[in-house]
Amino acid sequence: MELIKGFPATSQDRYPLNVTNIIKHSVRNYGPQEIASRRLDGSMFRYTYSDAYERMQRLANGLTKLGVKVGDRVGVLAWNSNENYEVYFGVPGMGAVMLLLNLRLTPQDLAYVVEHSGCEYIIVDETLLPIAHALAPLCPQIKGYVVITMPGKKMSDVETPLENTHSYEELLAESDPVFDWPMMEETSAYAACYTTGTTGKPKGVYYSHRDVYLHSMCIGMNTGMNVKDTCCQIVPMFHALGWGLPQAATLVGSRIILPGMYTLETLDSLSKLIVDEGVTMSAGAPAIFMPLLEYIRNLEERPDLTGVRLLSGATEPPVSMMKGFWDMTGAEIIHAYGATETTPLVTINRLMPWLETSLSEDERWNLKKKQGFAVGGLDVKVVDATLKDVAHDGKTPGEILIRGPWITGAYHNAPGSEASFTEDGFWRSGDVGTMDENGYLKITDRVKDVIKSGGEWISSVDMENEIISHNDVLDAAVVGVEHPKWQERPLALVVLRDDAKGKVNADDIRAHLSNVFAKWQLPDEVLFVDEIPKTSVGKTDKKVIRAEHKDMYSE
Amino acid sequence: MELIKGFPATSQDRYPLNVTNIIKHSVRNYGPQEIASRRLDGSMFRYTYSDAYERMQRLANGLTKLGVKVGDRVGVLAWNSNENYEVYFGVPGMGAVMLLLNLRLTPQDLAYVVEHSGCEYIIVDETLLPIAHALAPLCPQIKGYVVITMPGKKMSDVETPLENTHSYEELLAESDPVFDWPMMEETSAYAACYTTGTTGKPKGVYYSHRDVYLHSMCIGMNTGMNVKDTCCQIVPMFHALGWGLPQAATLVGSRIILPGMYTLETLDSLSKLIVDEGVTMSAGAPAIFMPLLEYIRNLEERPDLTGVRLLSGATEPPVSMMKGFWDMTGAEIIHAYGATETTPLVTINRLMPWLETSLSEDERWNLKKKQGFAVGGLDVKVVDATLKDVAHDGKTPGEILIRGPWITGAYHNAPGSEASFTEDGFWRSGDVGTMDENGYLKITDRVKDVIKSGGEWISSVDMENEIISHNDVLDAAVVGVEHPKWQERPLALVVLRDDAKGKVNADDIRAHLSNVFAKWQLPDEVLFVDEIPKTSVGKTDKKVIRAEHKDMYSE
Repeated sequence: MELIKGFPATSQDRYPLNVTNIIKHSVRNYGPQEIASRRLDGSMFRYTYSDAYERMQRLANGLTKLGVKVGDRVGVLAWNSNENYEVYFGVPGMGAVMLLLNLRLTPQDLAYVVEHSGCEYIIVDETLLPIAHALAPLCPQIKGYVVITMPGKKMSDVETPLENTHSYEELLAESDPVFDWPMMEETSAYAACYTTGTTGKPKGVYYSHRDVYLHSMCIGMNTGMNVKDTCCQIVPMFHALGWGLPQAATLVGSRIILPGMYTLETLDSLSKLIVDEGVTMSAGAPAIFMPLLEYIRNLEERPDLTGVRLLSGATEPPVSMMKGFWDMTGAEIIHAYGATETTPLVTINRLMPWLETSLSEDERWNLKKKQGFAVGGLDVKVVDATLKDVAHDGKTPGEILIRGPWITGAYHNAPGSEASFTEDGFWRSGDVGTMDENGYLKITDRVKDVIKSGGEWISSVDMENEIISHNDVLDAAVVGVEHPKWQERPLALVVLRDDAKGKVNADDIRAHLSNVFAKWQLPDEVLFVDEIPKTSVGKTDKKVIRAEHKDMYSE
Repeated sequence: MELIKGFPATSQDRYPLNVTNIIKHSVRNYGPQEIASRRLDGSMFRYTYSDAYERMQRLANGLTKLGVKVGDRVGVLAWNSNENYEVYFGVPGMGAVMLLLNLRLTPQDLAYVVEHSGCEYIIVDETLLPIAHALAPLCPQIKGYVVITMPGKKMSDVETPLENTHSYEELLAESDPVFDWPMMEETSAYAACYTTGTTGKPKGVYYSHRDVYLHSMCIGMNTGMNVKDTCCQIVPMFHALGWGLPQAATLVGSRIILPGMYTLETLDSLSKLIVDEGVTMSAGAPAIFMPLLEYIRNLEERPDLTGVRLLSGATEPPVSMMKGFWDMTGAEIIHAYGATETTPLVTINRLMPWLETSLSEDERWNLKKKQGFAVGGLDVKVVDATLKDVAHDGKTPGEILIRGPWITGAYHNAPGSEASFTEDGFWRSGDVGTMDENGYLKITDRVKDVIKSGGEWISSVDMENEIISHNDVLDAAVVGVEHPKWQERPLALVVLRDDAKGKVNADDIRAHLSNVFAKWQLPDEVLFVDEIPKTSVGKTDKKVIRAEHKDMYSE
């Protein structure tokens, strides 16, 4: 990407976009605004932006006393609490890098992340100490821990074998309430988050202050989020900056609700919190929003959620869910797409006014399932294997490439990862999708799950879904197997219902697929098996299938 | 301002914020959106973002053929028309600098601007050719003109003594519809606008691509402007980037209405346009909005303007006007503040939710008169003569200093203008104001109109208003006159009603002022005169008054 120098402007071009400006702005204008954080016992701790600002300053002074300096990495292993919120601003505000630690990772992966980042201090929730205990022996470099204890509990009452531990509350209480925030250069790192790919070691994305600032403005601009909103931080703050909502909410001054610890087993209490606190804006996955919809459906008095926006990511939101929210409550589910590498907002699905009138209701709902259009400032394209743009017809699949101010340009200190970036600076997302004539993106596959046959792509996911839709089929998997002539060809594994065994054959499956697939796309072989190999989390284990059948099409 | 380098991020930090990204984004996502431009005969020319995008490309190719290159300055002297809109993107898009030419300036001042900027081509409306004719002999450097002619009119039918003239339409028709936009560095100049201070020569502010991009996001974020809005460009596009609305509207995809030529005499037709086109977002001065309110009041069917936002600048919006819009139509007048040097948004007045409940109705309306709070990203402070912050009590006046990413850091090639900036990078606005405990700014004076007495400031504007509120007074002026002991002391000139002459004396005036002014602030001398010296545009000519009475308080 060649940049052209024009005539010089007279602007203050060295004036940086950084988190210092977000927090100073927030306390100057939104001091009395409320932040509410749910404690373990279900009670709500309520304070204001002003209170939080003072505690961010105490935290920065406290960490300084512990020896943390500009540029140091400070890990955080915590639920979405007010303390985590304070860390989100206090740590980058002092010029250190906040290292997001995913509490779902194995101790081995976490240890890799801590070691690789050079992190020496970790801020950890008392409830998550078991993770720290597993981590400590693997990470001798860690100098100490700051423990977010239960309210009123002293560090001396916390049982832990860890050395050099400090109570978060005591550290704040002992530290000065005024901190002189440095004016960080905007290209300095604000935080780091490691991707957890299914292959290889975690790879580090180091977000700059500029990324975070621009992304916050972008969220504000694209969702209309403002000071009258109540924003609930559902997305775990250890994922991709909590999808950028904590910073965006703080920039626009929204009231903030932090739900603390929750699990898939306690979603009812999360739903209750969302309704009771009058949340108007949030982001999460369908796995959260589906139970929320059910919770609301069962309420005697259903709330009017007109104007409420729920950003939905991770997987495609079912139309039934989107319609359910819309018809029953007035809330809008807004599909959005991003990744750890993209800060994360890349696309958002808002219906253009001209499509509202030109499409039928069914077409509109189907459109709303797509990932949406690229937000302003980003270059997003869908390309074939030669990196040429595919047709924008909503049909031709290609890999999604993304370039822009808040997109990562590299992985930190990860030799060999350069292949994830093109020469002209695009990040290769590894996602496969289509772009329609209106600029709406739809993700269909991961590149590694696409079968490359004779220069064309066949979607294994689509083919699996189509096979499973056959009345006699219980489960199916489709993989690409190396082929001497066509590069790859599809192979289907099918689990039949007991009463269909021996009655349904490969041609029946191919005939069923012919409804939606072209002849050349049909699987050469269809194997009937008793079960599909699965990973520990229940996903189809394609690695195992590919390994087992790798020679099927060889000569 | 010392910038601190932290740990390096992995971001694409060289990926620029520039106009190329705005226009590519707009055509990719908002292609079918309408832009409507009012012709001289009152008819509406309607086309789409896609159409405009093609014409921007033709314009860039056409100007390239004329020899315009990256970095060249191209003047534009035009009404708010679709052609001007195309220039707003096509010229900076090709890497040239768009020079905004204020059609209200004298030919001498315009010539200075053209010469100083090194501008060689001017795009001019046919209706404004008389200005170009006056300018041409003063600016031998100008190589040529592109004339926006009436629809269907050939250049050969335009009467003009100018040489090397080209028809805008013919130039576009002859040029290629595809232009390969350069990726400009974000610190390159996008446009230039010269301030027209009452003293000295015009001074040039050169906005960067980055300024414009960030400002557009800021407008979007702070006004909620979006693709469902219809934005009317009332502010002349030769003022401070049209207050940034053309670019913001394009970034968020609003429908755009361009009213073409209008004057204070034709405001009724402008009001009609605003109502008929269903405008939901605009910006202007009370001088525009007051007649609009009257127009609506007189309609048989008054429109429901709930949700409509009208940014009001230049002078304080009267409460009666704000209430009138609110009560009669549901539209919100939003006071905002800025300057040529600030791209221009600095403050905006939105009522914080906690103030809505804690203030009485009268207090709320009075608060809404203030200029508002600083938008995120900017440092705004109010300082005394030693550059120390004054108390945020809503009473203590000081000079307003502004620093931030889209604030100018210098005037282009203007030796001696360094005094307008502080050592730590603030622009000295020359405006005097107060800041209240909620962060709302109120402008009270210009620094040069404030009387500096014994280290304290006295507002000449407030004192004039208070004198004029006396029943026997027709007009008044207050200036500061040099004083050997107190630095300056106030002098009041008063025009009495005929029947009060000889009856009202200086002590009466001072007694009247005592209601709101402290004893030390009262004018030492009150002179009764027959008239107050005025400038050619009817403003009090304080320069003349100061010169005439400069020795009044000398020993």
